[in-house]
Amino acid sequence: MPFAGNMFSGKWGGTMCLTEAGAGSSVGDNRCKATPTDDPEVYLLEGEKIFISGGDQDLTENICHLVLARTPNAGRGTKGLSLFVVPKYLTDETGALGARNGAHVLGIEHKMGIHGNATCTLGLGSRGPCKGFLVGQENQGIELMFLMMNEARIGVAAQGQAIAAAAYGFARTYAKDRVQGQALQSGKNPDAPPVAIVQHPDVRRMLMLQKVYSETMRSLLCKLALDFDLMHESADAAERERLKGRVDLWTPIVKATCTDLGFEVATLAVQTYGGYGYIGEYPVEQLVRDAKIASIYEGTNGIQAMDLVGRKLRVGGGALFIEWMNAANATLAEAAAAGLGAAAEALGKAVQMLAGSAMHLAGLGKARKVEAAMLQASPFLRMFGTVLLGMEAIEQAMVARRLAGERGESALFTGKQRNLEFFVATLLPQAIALGKTVQSGDESCLDPSLF
Amino acid sequence: MPFAGNMFSGKWGGTMCLTEAGAGSSVGDNRCKATPTDDPEVYLLEGEKIFISGGDQDLTENICHLVLARTPNAGRGTKGLSLFVVPKYLTDETGALGARNGAHVLGIEHKMGIHGNATCTLGLGSRGPCKGFLVGQENQGIELMFLMMNEARIGVAAQGQAIAAAAYGFARTYAKDRVQGQALQSGKNPDAPPVAIVQHPDVRRMLMLQKVYSETMRSLLCKLALDFDLMHESADAAERERLKGRVDLWTPIVKATCTDLGFEVATLAVQTYGGYGYIGEYPVEQLVRDAKIASIYEGTNGIQAMDLVGRKLRVGGGALFIEWMNAANATLAEAAAAGLGAAAEALGKAVQMLAGSAMHLAGLGKARKVEAAMLQASPFLRMFGTVLLGMEAIEQAMVARRLAGERGESALFTGKQRNLEFFVATLLPQAIALGKTVQSGDESCLDPSLF
Repeated sequence: MPFAGNMFSGKWGGTMCLTEAGAGSSVGDNRCKATPTDDPEVYLLEGEKIFISGGDQDLTENICHLVLARTPNAGRGTKGLSLFVVPKYLTDETGALGARNGAHVLGIEHKMGIHGNATCTLGLGSRGPCKGFLVGQENQGIELMFLMMNEARIGVAAQGQAIAAAAYGFARTYAKDRVQGQALQSGKNPDAPPVAIVQHPDVRRMLMLQKVYSETMRSLLCKLALDFDLMHESADAAERERLKGRVDLWTPIVKATCTDLGFEVATLAVQTYGGYGYIGEYPVEQLVRDAKIASIYEGTNGIQAMDLVGRKLRVGGGALFIEWMNAANATLAEAAAAGLGAAAEALGKAVQMLAGSAMHLAGLGKARKVEAAMLQASPFLRMFGTVLLGMEAIEQAMVARRLAGERGESALFTGKQRNLEFFVATLLPQAIALGKTVQSGDESCLDPSLF
Repeated sequence: MPFAGNMFSGKWGGTMCLTEAGAGSSVGDNRCKATPTDDPEVYLLEGEKIFISGGDQDLTENICHLVLARTPNAGRGTKGLSLFVVPKYLTDETGALGARNGAHVLGIEHKMGIHGNATCTLGLGSRGPCKGFLVGQENQGIELMFLMMNEARIGVAAQGQAIAAAAYGFARTYAKDRVQGQALQSGKNPDAPPVAIVQHPDVRRMLMLQKVYSETMRSLLCKLALDFDLMHESADAAERERLKGRVDLWTPIVKATCTDLGFEVATLAVQTYGGYGYIGEYPVEQLVRDAKIASIYEGTNGIQAMDLVGRKLRVGGGALFIEWMNAANATLAEAAAAGLGAAAEALGKAVQMLAGSAMHLAGLGKARKVEAAMLQASPFLRMFGTVLLGMEAIEQAMVARRLAGERGESALFTGKQRNLEFFVATLLPQAIALGKTVQSGDESCLDPSLF
């Protein structure tokens, strides 16, 4: 049946059906059953999936649910899962719609945000037979799902950045438009003219945070997405392997960092608006509500941190980290040569702190203190993400410096220099602080008498 | 008319009417007019007030609006404002309700949260004469309003703490109840039994942040509220003066810190729940939405930071800060003597960093670099707030240590020791990082070519 072509063209919609009531982060606990039929491609599915984004809608004539389920006698855990296409309507080879398949909406969630998306509970086989068409081989489900999931994590990171960029755009426009209060320089003179709030230093500080985060996340995401494409398309096998390693290392960092920061930037935008930011008439409170889900879906940010520390850092004895660190240090040397020595030195210290933190976590792993290591996974990820954004800030400043030399100064180029200065003064100390936490050896919250 | 008695007993409701469409943070831009009548107590009010919490409701038979307005020929700015009681229904001396007064709801806001509160636009005099009864003297309005406002800021801080405590309570209960995933120690064995998510280190880390913030904010608030009472009630005039200074210094810090952290803790609670946290069926997403307003109303947290740096730090040439610092150092010496030397030393460094940061800001003020100083007002406030919470953590640990010696160990007492360890490892480095930012001399975002 012509699933892929119709999904790719946008004629048919699609969903991913992993989560069940007892199996969210622990996908391996999936209980949906898939029973073979006489047709080797066709299985009968039974079970319930929850939190299915776009689980039903009438914008497309058909919806292809991609469902993880367990065949009879399959093993436990993720390795016993198989992947099935479950179309809302069965079709023939031409794509003409036939009978309604037994995948039905049992309920719709009322959520904090993303109200444009119907998040559904789907019943499979509860109101009639539910046919699923095997994708690949039995027990290959999680492997196939992750082909999509790894790309989806980059997509969710882009959602975080996009929300940040939108929030910053709204907040900047509002701050330039909204007149209130006098300039600080005018002292307490009640006759001083009122000014736009963009003139107030604390408002500028909030806008600068939004600007720096939005702009550095954007180029970071572009790099990761480019590497993702090149890792498939590069003619050089060794380069493909290197790029795959880079994508493997960066994906959890970028997913968690951009989604957490998307929420933080949207929150700053609300604060920039003041009381109006809290009102639905203005666009920013929705962005806060919409952003929050991105830290949770496609693998919670805690899961991303565990993936980074438990898997990606350990590949080849730290090979992916070392490859990245060498490249980062080369970039910093280049930046220093280009006249950005002070910032390069500050970033170099943060890279060193990151390496020390990675070594510390590796040491905990070798000592089999896996809980102590995982306790610091999220702070380590946030530190790594901050350093990656700092690297973007210095690269952008380096390019802006060169272009300003060639074409003359502009607000855009100056802005990139200021981004870097602000980053070094305001955000880099936070990365160093996170490194101190990671290396502190603190295990206080593992005390079993707590909670 | 018996306003105060009926409001105090809860028989009548009340509102505070400061904000106008063009006058939020800049209260001095208020344009509501108050015209005298033949009765020296009675004025006729005309204008429009917005964002009035509880601006109308039928839970109480009458509502007393406390309205700032400007009498004819009064000066500009806050000093030309007078305060009026505007009852919804006019009454006689006995409190019996008479005619409807001309204060009417023109609209209701649709907000991100606090849906239990009707936030109204109030028209004064637009649908009939609106009588206002002068409180105190003409031009005394802002002074009288701040009698209430200073206490209200402590109340809003309590709202932040209460939301944090509620969020933590829900998240802790959920984490102990919700079974998912295997213990890390069981490695990749698919037959290992599932455990409650409170067993996962990253969940414990999130709960610990919630616990430490909730518990340290609670005792900080109790201290401030006690000082607020004693500053009126102490028999010793010098002590009343000292306490007033402490309350003046702490109020902006505690208001901003507890409200920002209330939001952060509620957000952590959502993350602890995972996908369920995003659903209205569970209680925590509402807490995130409700918490956000507290950083905005009763003076935005940016205004609090300006009050701290521009006013409170400068009183008596830094006298309020020095009084606090000496007391803090005495407490740390006591804690060191009680066996908490390492934590006391770490906190002592943070207190020093705070003092250095205050000196740095004072230097900027003397050099008339007022914008550069105000740029760091919010980071300085957050640093101060974090140190205050750290002082609570060490005081609680000190008391717990003593009580454990007298009565034997308990989970409560152990928990206070762990709070302190966690605070020193995880939160104190962030305070130090903020101090570096405050003292960085960075003025990047003041560049006029930005935004």
